[in-house]
Amino acid sequence: MSDYASPRPIAVTMGDPAGVGPEVTARAWRARREHKLPPFVTIGDAAAIEAVWDGPIARVGGIDEAARIFADALPVWHLEDSGALTPGVPTPAGAACALHALETGIGLTRNGACAALVTGPVSKHALHGIGYTHPGQTEFIAERCGVTATNAVMMLAGPALRVVPLTVHIPLEQVPERLTSDLIIAKARIVARGLHRDFGIERPRIGVAGLNPHAGECGQLGDEELRIIAPAVAQLAEEGLSVEGPLAADALFAPTIRTQYDALLCAYHDQALAPFKALHFHDGVNLTLGLPIVRTSPDHGTAFNIAGTATADPGPTIAAIAMASRMAEARERSGAPAK
Amino acid sequence: MSDYASPRPIAVTMGDPAGVGPEVTARAWRARREHKLPPFVTIGDAAAIEAVWDGPIARVGGIDEAARIFADALPVWHLEDSGALTPGVPTPAGAACALHALETGIGLTRNGACAALVTGPVSKHALHGIGYTHPGQTEFIAERCGVTATNAVMMLAGPALRVVPLTVHIPLEQVPERLTSDLIIAKARIVARGLHRDFGIERPRIGVAGLNPHAGECGQLGDEELRIIAPAVAQLAEEGLSVEGPLAADALFAPTIRTQYDALLCAYHDQALAPFKALHFHDGVNLTLGLPIVRTSPDHGTAFNIAGTATADPGPTIAAIAMASRMAEARERSGAPAK
Repeated sequence: MSDYASPRPIAVTMGDPAGVGPEVTARAWRARREHKLPPFVTIGDAAAIEAVWDGPIARVGGIDEAARIFADALPVWHLEDSGALTPGVPTPAGAACALHALETGIGLTRNGACAALVTGPVSKHALHGIGYTHPGQTEFIAERCGVTATNAVMMLAGPALRVVPLTVHIPLEQVPERLTSDLIIAKARIVARGLHRDFGIERPRIGVAGLNPHAGECGQLGDEELRIIAPAVAQLAEEGLSVEGPLAADALFAPTIRTQYDALLCAYHDQALAPFKALHFHDGVNLTLGLPIVRTSPDHGTAFNIAGTATADPGPTIAAIAMASRMAEARERSGAPAK
Repeated sequence: MSDYASPRPIAVTMGDPAGVGPEVTARAWRARREHKLPPFVTIGDAAAIEAVWDGPIARVGGIDEAARIFADALPVWHLEDSGALTPGVPTPAGAACALHALETGIGLTRNGACAALVTGPVSKHALHGIGYTHPGQTEFIAERCGVTATNAVMMLAGPALRVVPLTVHIPLEQVPERLTSDLIIAKARIVARGLHRDFGIERPRIGVAGLNPHAGECGQLGDEELRIIAPAVAQLAEEGLSVEGPLAADALFAPTIRTQYDALLCAYHDQALAPFKALHFHDGVNLTLGLPIVRTSPDHGTAFNIAGTATADPGPTIAAIAMASRMAEARERSGAPAK
């Protein structure tokens, strides 16, 4: 049934029931043999899947049951009917169901019943409409895991590249002031530990991109490299980590250079995500380092505009489930606590 | 000998004779049949090629001779001995030779003897040491062509992607203030005209990237999209150009989206060049739109550290020559002046 050693299934929240989450989860299950996916259990509204998919599903009452049934049907941990459901049309009941699924998934993973958490796409707008105050799912997961949000580090990972944006959803104008040596040092430590614990890399090699063109050309095109990045890299090297930089951010993504590093730390959102999506649009995984649980998600949104049309690509969900499983196994092998 | 219609050869300056220019030019000639390269003539110090290459070369006294000899030997328009030459060690005499080659190449292309200009890599440092005051080769070419530097627009082009950075070698911190509606409008017009005239695209589709993450998310992550980019796009659309934006800069480089545009205008250096080099490290071409001549160059530097070791990749030079030839043909077909 699976090449994966762990008997515990992966918890996969379906996200907003009106988005593409239900269908990509179902289609990931259908591709389980081809992609050698480990058992997983879908958490959310079973009716939302039935509305867009005619394959076999099994509403399960326990995690053991999910693992047993996985070969023959998509196991669904049914939470609640989210109401009359039209794909592409988010509702407050759907947002409540997505949030409930997230809470359930975190709980099942934290208590060890599930090996890892994969979160489907939610609508921030719909969640905020029902009183949710976190900027995204990651901050909510971090809080439920007792981790401060700044210590939960977003990484985008694919077969060719792993990137970490050091600053994320802020205006570009604010990047130079928000990029500090302390920020770089704190995030690099979490990334190094994560690559070791969750990816089984003995001595992770980390590259840090410059902020300015050509990494500032020795101060001629900006001084943040000399004032902020270089001192942070020196401090990290002193701690024994394998960290290099500042590196010119354009050349860094060329195949001959990016392959010299296990992860690239980038100064801002687009510096990391533009080259990442150029290379990994169909198999990019968004994951969170620094948590007590393994958490990944497909790197796309609810795509309300195509929900229900059976055109959404299940590739990112398949990649997210496979990567979560590999990470959970690496963490178990590393001897770190299972939860 | 060639699939190319134009009987006029391409002028290829060898750049700094101590860099990799001489060897990649020679190896491009060796690959002329495999890549169906049109005739070209190398301009510079013949001895610099002889020092790093043992293939046939022919010192030519005229452009007609270069075209005739091209099948059998690398034609070299020999300018001067640049002195005792050690690959990897730039000298003032070498810089002078590189500058002389550039002037000669511009002249041969402007007067119509050559169909297009391909410029080899020079050392800005060495050039500045002999009194050269331009920031790069492009500004010098623009001046010699009677075009103001701001109207000479850098584009990076490869088989999968064409990008134009709207701002280039400035600190990231200065990008928000330097990105103006006027700048976007002026460059987009030149890009549209260039795609039409030099690439034969009837109605070029241009995408304009946002400055901020997610193109500012309707003003929540910065207002430059609303204040600067959207009005510029509206103005361009009013002029009848096919221009869209502001577009989220990360998703923009995904294959399904980037293929909807003939060129992407980016707000700053790394937004354009990081994804471009991720995709086109071996076949990326740097070209200049807005000039009376066709000009391309391989997208790399002098690489003094590997000069003379026969390890430099001739791929970018081959791509630059092939693209210059296609552009010159498109321009001839378009009926634009040949020079």
